[in-house]
Amino acid sequence: MGDPRGIGPEVVAKALARGSLYQICSPLILGDVRVLQRIVEKLGLGMKVVKVGVGLHFEPSPEVLQVLSLSDLPPEEGPGEIPDGVEGARASFLYAEKAGKMAMEGRVKAIATGPVSKEAISRAGIPFAGHTEYFAGISGTREFVMMLAGDRLKVALVTTHLALNEVSKSLSEERILSVIEITGRGLQDYFGLRTPRIAVTALNPHAGEGGLFGKEETIISRAVQRAGDRGFAISGPWPADSLFHRAVQGEFDVVVCMYHDQALIPLKLLHFDTAVNITLGLPFVRTSVDHGVAYDIAGKGVASSRSLEEAILLATKMARRKIQNSKSKVQK
Amino acid sequence: MGDPRGIGPEVVAKALARGSLYQICSPLILGDVRVLQRIVEKLGLGMKVVKVGVGLHFEPSPEVLQVLSLSDLPPEEGPGEIPDGVEGARASFLYAEKAGKMAMEGRVKAIATGPVSKEAISRAGIPFAGHTEYFAGISGTREFVMMLAGDRLKVALVTTHLALNEVSKSLSEERILSVIEITGRGLQDYFGLRTPRIAVTALNPHAGEGGLFGKEETIISRAVQRAGDRGFAISGPWPADSLFHRAVQGEFDVVVCMYHDQALIPLKLLHFDTAVNITLGLPFVRTSVDHGVAYDIAGKGVASSRSLEEAILLATKMARRKIQNSKSKVQK
Repeated sequence: MGDPRGIGPEVVAKALARGSLYQICSPLILGDVRVLQRIVEKLGLGMKVVKVGVGLHFEPSPEVLQVLSLSDLPPEEGPGEIPDGVEGARASFLYAEKAGKMAMEGRVKAIATGPVSKEAISRAGIPFAGHTEYFAGISGTREFVMMLAGDRLKVALVTTHLALNEVSKSLSEERILSVIEITGRGLQDYFGLRTPRIAVTALNPHAGEGGLFGKEETIISRAVQRAGDRGFAISGPWPADSLFHRAVQGEFDVVVCMYHDQALIPLKLLHFDTAVNITLGLPFVRTSVDHGVAYDIAGKGVASSRSLEEAILLATKMARRKIQNSKSKVQK
Repeated sequence: MGDPRGIGPEVVAKALARGSLYQICSPLILGDVRVLQRIVEKLGLGMKVVKVGVGLHFEPSPEVLQVLSLSDLPPEEGPGEIPDGVEGARASFLYAEKAGKMAMEGRVKAIATGPVSKEAISRAGIPFAGHTEYFAGISGTREFVMMLAGDRLKVALVTTHLALNEVSKSLSEERILSVIEITGRGLQDYFGLRTPRIAVTALNPHAGEGGLFGKEETIISRAVQRAGDRGFAISGPWPADSLFHRAVQGEFDVVVCMYHDQALIPLKLLHFDTAVNITLGLPFVRTSVDHGVAYDIAGKGVASSRSLEEAILLATKMARRKIQNSKSKVQK
């Protein structure tokens, strides 16, 4: 559900009001039943909101929001009313913690996470760098990749939340190679691409023009070379400015990017509120909304549930593909 | 005409074959008459190619390419045949030199430059960092701005051809302020925007999240503040990943960017071969194609002349606007 004081509750309620979702998955909300009841009432969405146990024997239905209720926040403190409270942040961590456990135990096939505030969770005394890092930690995953996927463009990131000035020294041949491999396997396992065509960006403008501005392209080149030796359909480093156009035109399935804005600028330009954030490399399927808690508009019912809907749909598709893959392996 | 061995001659010939151009401007080619004759013949474009003198008394016509011929390259060495020759590079410099002189003398109202190879010109023994720097040098212009303009997005650059790792240390409050001012005045003078709405990017992801990743945003903020004090409609620093979407939606007229790819990634994604490169801050109008010499395809007739056509059209519009402005100042 994400942070109960953010737009999480309302986008969850809106997204799960869509009947078509129930034909492909059985959504379970990890959240707070009273907070959800209040927002459903406030927005006049008209569905029931009920508590369910951990047994998970339930009939999915758009008329009934089924909640594994992990917090009990006072209903008079609705979304948007106490934006700086730590109770909400603490609760949002509990939902993530439970989701991770259930995924590790195989009791859920995928997690789609709503927005939380890393900063608020930290203020609540819980060391928390984000859902991604948390799920990596509990599953013992050392190398993972943030990928963002839209209809027209997919991008995978070598570095993420880092000062631009720190990017160069954080690039290593091993990390780039690892990102290429995790991304390539992710596209095979979850997107059904037998030989994903992977392009890798350069770090510097014009790919450094033969070393004229920047030398990092030699590190990237070596990683590309090694990934090619391992059988990946890979090319690069390409000058980043013209590469995304080529990818969108269909030349590549994914672009491996060196830093946050290099990836996010083209992605958000093409897919402003429809991109899904995927963590590759975890032992379970995990997607996320591509927006924050937006405390300022929480509870007003104006937030778009589009990103969460896309995150749930994609998580479902990925989980189904994974189940199919394991079945066909068993058959072989 | 750009480098005679690149795609310059063919894109010039193709662009100037368009009749509509002659209703708004009188194009004069600074180039090589025999090279142009050869490519016109080879591509079967059917127009005459004639030498004209410096007097510039000529009737513009799409049937007659009028060339101020500044080199005399052997016609058997056609475009694409000697890609590494220095004669072509040297000749391309002569065209730029003459164009700059004519513009400074007021004998042409605008320059649209074809593609040259900086590297080939340097190899020919001429110190040359690019048309932009050359025109700045001969006109005594210390502060100038590279702006790229497409129908949907305009971007202006604080730094240009620089290793990514050098960007942070190259940002100064004075340079950012200067780019904002030159860009703002450029949009007033040449694009008829009375109060251009200018957005400024952050350098770091999420605009540094309050100093969590990177501190450069404080420098940018101070420049934005000072530009605001001077009357510009300005805001920022904004997280770059969502800013271009906002600009394209009409919230801003131009985005001032901190580094090359931050500006060029969104621009080329939206305007792959229709963007025009403009140098603001010069005493004359100067636009440029947004592509290179492409020696590999030169002379084949496959190169698109779209970017040059856009560059000529925009240069014409800018020059007309400038003439109008000076007339209305005189009337006042």
